[in-house]
Amino acid sequence: MRHAPLALSLGDPAGIGPEITLAAWAERRARGLPPFAVVGPASVLIATARRLGLDIPVKDVSWAEVAATFDSALPVVATGVGCDPEPGKPDPANAPAVIAAIEQAVAAVRRGEAGAVVTNPIAKSVLYAAGFTHPGHTEFLAELARPADGGAAPRPVMMLWCEELAVVPVTIHVPLSAVPGLLTTELIVETGRIVAVDLRRYFGIAQPRLALAGLNPHAGEGGALGLEDDAVVAPAVAALERLGIAATGPHPADTMFHARARTGYDAALAMYHDQALIPIKTIAFDEGVNVTLGLPFIRTSPDHGTAFDIAGRGIARPDSLCAALRLASRMAAAGSSSGASPS
Amino acid sequence: MRHAPLALSLGDPAGIGPEITLAAWAERRARGLPPFAVVGPASVLIATARRLGLDIPVKDVSWAEVAATFDSALPVVATGVGCDPEPGKPDPANAPAVIAAIEQAVAAVRRGEAGAVVTNPIAKSVLYAAGFTHPGHTEFLAELARPADGGAAPRPVMMLWCEELAVVPVTIHVPLSAVPGLLTTELIVETGRIVAVDLRRYFGIAQPRLALAGLNPHAGEGGALGLEDDAVVAPAVAALERLGIAATGPHPADTMFHARARTGYDAALAMYHDQALIPIKTIAFDEGVNVTLGLPFIRTSPDHGTAFDIAGRGIARPDSLCAALRLASRMAAAGSSSGASPS
Repeated sequence: MRHAPLALSLGDPAGIGPEITLAAWAERRARGLPPFAVVGPASVLIATARRLGLDIPVKDVSWAEVAATFDSALPVVATGVGCDPEPGKPDPANAPAVIAAIEQAVAAVRRGEAGAVVTNPIAKSVLYAAGFTHPGHTEFLAELARPADGGAAPRPVMMLWCEELAVVPVTIHVPLSAVPGLLTTELIVETGRIVAVDLRRYFGIAQPRLALAGLNPHAGEGGALGLEDDAVVAPAVAALERLGIAATGPHPADTMFHARARTGYDAALAMYHDQALIPIKTIAFDEGVNVTLGLPFIRTSPDHGTAFDIAGRGIARPDSLCAALRLASRMAAAGSSSGASPS
Repeated sequence: MRHAPLALSLGDPAGIGPEITLAAWAERRARGLPPFAVVGPASVLIATARRLGLDIPVKDVSWAEVAATFDSALPVVATGVGCDPEPGKPDPANAPAVIAAIEQAVAAVRRGEAGAVVTNPIAKSVLYAAGFTHPGHTEFLAELARPADGGAAPRPVMMLWCEELAVVPVTIHVPLSAVPGLLTTELIVETGRIVAVDLRRYFGIAQPRLALAGLNPHAGEGGALGLEDDAVVAPAVAALERLGIAATGPHPADTMFHARARTGYDAALAMYHDQALIPIKTIAFDEGVNVTLGLPFIRTSPDHGTAFDIAGRGIARPDSLCAALRLASRMAAAGSSSGASPS
């Protein structure tokens, strides 16, 4: 193993996290999974296995024991904060356990005991009801990455990844009508810079190639279909090139994502949510991974939510979680060999 | 043959139209193409074949002779308006020949001598320079479909089609920032109604299922990510249902287009250009077909432009044109068997 074991946070224990975690471990060999430990209460995994009739040994261990344990039992590193969830029933009473798991997973990776953080899905509304104040999972992770000297939290960048495509939305969870106003050359350049740095550091790509999508149909068609591509996106391409980053565009978004076009870049920068998410979920619905770039540690996550509606039935697919674990391992190995520090 | 031969318009003769037409005819058996005639001057096809060193017989015929000719020669129905194009050099001098070809292809199908119109790509700017005043190819076809009594021209609806997906953008060639303002419940309903009628008439689908995409990320997430999905799209779904059309949505657009999701509907209605074009061009870049619904005749077209930059080199792929010819034939056969009249 070329890196420390991965820290897999509990996620919302009333969602599908516990069952896909058990399913992933059970299929660890067939799916080529790296050693990982769940960060959270072992009781949740034991109860889930019993409920689903799965004969899966779950073992409370320390980080030093994870690698040796992984082959014979699902290793769990306790947080000291328990919960007693009912599958499919979101409950703010579980929030302290959810939050402790995220905090301690990050702490382990920052100490170097874990190689990367992989997060099971959470439900923001449940955490808000318990007093959580961060806009989301990723922003919370960025806060946890704030330097000890009190400096600014890093700006996290969401990348969606599958074997065939990596795509980064420059604006994300905002109404479509707000996108043109939020899109600035500076925002695009800063996003592209973070992507280029982390593609180099964690994906072993010496000179990452970024392809920038246009905002408008046909990338604005010279202004006939919108002005932002010439006024905002094109200057961002030029600025990235001045930073020594191989950037192209603005490209018409509809012709960027077929198989031949994808060979022309390492990551696509999309200007808004659906422009990024439509192509990757069309290509790889079950195996997409959500990667957070820009943090001082590696973080991946399955590209789906808590799925309370099917939780507890044992039918949720662990495909995306397995892909997230494999990608985190690949990034940790590349990070180690490139000399990137774990925190 | 279950329908009259297809009328393939010349398109811009300086673009790739002539060479992909020759390539399609040359591969007519391998590609399973229905009999068609080019509407335009035979001289253009003869000159293109000679220039590319292709031994393809081209024969001027009347509509009655097309079917019997097709096996041994590329049938051409002359328009009486010639041109002398140079490949790759758009020239307004060719405009009269381009326009006559479209007009006479439509006339042939309205007379019942041809079963459908398939259009080679044109370049609007070339036609504008020659005094053409219609916003585009499709609007010109709608004008040609205006009833003889001077009634209103029909409203054409663009559908992009491949074997795996049919998708209709409700707004099309407008800046992204204009989309929220242009999107009305009425526009969505009228579009959906036209799509349902023509899926029934020309695709043999007794009860077409329409899936409507949300405008905003996650279809607005209950208003947190935009109000239009609840205020504009959801009422359109309800109105279509009241019309007896099986409509669902608004769906988060990113999860609508993977293989399992696509089994749930016959056509997806997207709210803007890239939301429709990204998934279909990701799935079927070379074999997508542009279909115009809502006209009193069948019209398909390859889903690409004139490609002046590669015209005359013999490297353009006829895949999309062949798909357009096959789909037009399928629609014509379904239209005949459903008793739809040709005009």
